[in-house]
Amino acid sequence: MISPKKYAKAAKMIPKGFKTANEFFNYVYTDDEMIWMGQNTNHLHDENGIMEAMLESIKKRDYCKYPPSEGFPELKELVLKDLGLTDGFEILITAGGTESLYLCTNDILGPEDNTITSDPGYLIIDNFASRFGDHVKSVPIYNKKCGYKLTPDLVRENMDKNTKLVVLIDPLNPLGSCYTKEEIKDFADLAEDNDIYMLHDITYRDFARDHHLVADYAPEHALTIYSFSKIYGMAGMRIGGVVGVPDVINSLRSIVINDLGTNIVAQRGAIAAIKTKNQWIDRIRNTTRGNQKIIKQAVDQVEGAFIPVYPSDGNMMAIDLYDTGIKPLDVAEYLLDKKIFTREGSYTSKLFGHRYLRVSYSVPTKDVEYFAKCFLEAVEALKP
Amino acid sequence: MISPKKYAKAAKMIPKGFKTANEFFNYVYTDDEMIWMGQNTNHLHDENGIMEAMLESIKKRDYCKYPPSEGFPELKELVLKDLGLTDGFEILITAGGTESLYLCTNDILGPEDNTITSDPGYLIIDNFASRFGDHVKSVPIYNKKCGYKLTPDLVRENMDKNTKLVVLIDPLNPLGSCYTKEEIKDFADLAEDNDIYMLHDITYRDFARDHHLVADYAPEHALTIYSFSKIYGMAGMRIGGVVGVPDVINSLRSIVINDLGTNIVAQRGAIAAIKTKNQWIDRIRNTTRGNQKIIKQAVDQVEGAFIPVYPSDGNMMAIDLYDTGIKPLDVAEYLLDKKIFTREGSYTSKLFGHRYLRVSYSVPTKDVEYFAKCFLEAVEALKP
Ligand SMILES: Cc1ncc(COP(=O)(O)O)c(C=O)c1O
Ligand SMILES: Cc1ncc(COP(=O)(O)O)c(C=O)c1O
Repeated sequence: MISPKKYAKAAKMIPKGFKTANEFFNYVYTDDEMIWMGQNTNHLHDENGIMEAMLESIKKRDYCKYPPSEGFPELKELVLKDLGLTDGFEILITAGGTESLYLCTNDILGPEDNTITSDPGYLIIDNFASRFGDHVKSVPIYNKKCGYKLTPDLVRENMDKNTKLVVLIDPLNPLGSCYTKEEIKDFADLAEDNDIYMLHDITYRDFARDHHLVADYAPEHALTIYSFSKIYGMAGMRIGGVVGVPDVINSLRSIVINDLGTNIVAQRGAIAAIKTKNQWIDRIRNTTRGNQKIIKQAVDQVEGAFIPVYPSDGNMMAIDLYDTGIKPLDVAEYLLDKKIFTREGSYTSKLFGHRYLRVSYSVPTKDVEYFAKCFLEAVEALKP
Repeated sequence: MISPKKYAKAAKMIPKGFKTANEFFNYVYTDDEMIWMGQNTNHLHDENGIMEAMLESIKKRDYCKYPPSEGFPELKELVLKDLGLTDGFEILITAGGTESLYLCTNDILGPEDNTITSDPGYLIIDNFASRFGDHVKSVPIYNKKCGYKLTPDLVRENMDKNTKLVVLIDPLNPLGSCYTKEEIKDFADLAEDNDIYMLHDITYRDFARDHHLVADYAPEHALTIYSFSKIYGMAGMRIGGVVGVPDVINSLRSIVINDLGTNIVAQRGAIAAIKTKNQWIDRIRNTTRGNQKIIKQAVDQVEGAFIPVYPSDGNMMAIDLYDTGIKPLDVAEYLLDKKIFTREGSYTSKLFGHRYLRVSYSVPTKDVEYFAKCFLEAVEALKP
């Protein structure tokens, strides 16, 4: 079990020269030259309706008023349509997918209930689950045999009679592994047969070449977490949501936190983001896929380094450096000096964090080229 | 004890013609002609740096990046300075005061701990407290004898050995009652003597003629809830925070929800809001105080109607209609037809909600004049 304290400790892994994580993030945030490859954010949006809708909303002084607490009906409908979950599903809009993840773990888990997650994975979910449930079993999946993902078989092996929740991050942060239709169907059966909830975190869905929803096959047992932070490039707006059948969403309603709703400028932006999606999504997908190749070419030049999942179905990947003898944290600090923000593995893994550097590549291609150059320099400078 | 279910029921008190609260709020939100006197929001800001700072932030595409999770250091400092709590205090920035209220009740209350609140009061706090603690004692304060507020004596009378938290809303939503320096000192002593936390909700502080902080007299026992929704006119941006001594804030850090921070445009606006405060605060205070008088003059014309706390130290007041035989809900619906959004009492009281209408008046004076006219018409039309 990952205790909140242990998590807090892991999150304290901050580069030299900074007293707190908050100071460090303020630094990377405030430096306009910093290249953001550290938080899977998306810097590839150019002229489109999202910015315009947000500017318009502010000029209209929308922000004086409280928004409807569950989200604008228009936005709720657009998200459901985007997922093709229009029949029999409801949605709550929240401050990021994060708040939805919190609500779901809070609602589903009682003190006796166990959760299954993966390592590597997105540790704040383990942290949330450990606050409300009993045991969080974080299954090691950092190996080729299971395809670097939590498979249905692994879940079956690690389940016990108190397992109530399985967390599927799909595509997986930090590796970019993703599920096939067969696997998703298998998870759906598993959920129904054992009366388990699947927390399907689809934050990176739109970067994937192919993607399937548990909600399509086991609607009553699926909670789908949606985010505007990644493909839509709106991380700083803190907006996302959770989709489920009415029973599930009604239960969430009774434990809601944002009683006065989610930021209205974010909601206006989100509406425009979905509406304009077909105008920009191909370009952004193509660029991220091209950027992956540039990184791959660099990594291939380093003996002992490899990319566990290639191509990644997310906008991020891990670069395994273990056999090079170079510490990911040292590379991250070297790159930070070059104004490139990346993240060493311990941010997304208890067991394998010492092995890899995580880089996201939804940034302009010239920045990825610069990264590739600096990465090779770092390896040269740091090799034992 | 107010159970989440009971609260949900109370919140369902929505005007005729709407299926859900969300639909109703979407309606009042979306209608540009609607006069907002229903949620204590502030519509009196005109040209100032707040809007500009937010537009600037969006144009710079700040929103692609995640902000530092606890808030920009500049903003944190500005809030502490605004309160004069620079020495020995820390702060977390959250999605509205609401998220801070949730964190505080979650952190302070164990399953055996009791809470004292007031009725009337701000019911979501009772709801939060009932999720985490045992008993929530909501003390009836709707009478002249106690000055329409939860006094130190009332707290002493209603305390038991498990009382761990006292909620002071100051000025009080919905009545506008406020504490003197002596009362605040008395609360501070009470907190220290009995090792009780004072949750000091100062959301409406800047509308008060005079205001004092428990944190100044019992720093270790005070949690101060700050909001940008009211005086700053930024309700829709969902930004606020909680101030306390390092031990208290460290404890909150371990149960944080917004692991990836609070909306960055809101933070940019909030920074500008505090920085420009002295340019607009006198005007806004004078206008709200003048607006109060207009409402008072109208109410004085209605036999049986009265304003329990006048002048109010908030930007809202209650209008007691009980002796007129007119139901507040009917007045609210009458006014809604005239495009004036107000709130009947049950939104802020279990015991006295049938007695009063709550109106906020931080809106242009011409709108308040229109309200006064329509209110008198409503009384005429609805009198039994
Ligand atoms: C797997 C996963 N889920 C959820 C989130 C949080 O997203 P949001 O910004 O919508 O809170 C992240 C952010 O990195 C993530 O990687
Ligand atoms: C007493 C009180 N506290 C807190 C809040 C919530 O404020 P925020 O918008 O900062 O979440 C309100 C809002 O009406 C309030 O009346």
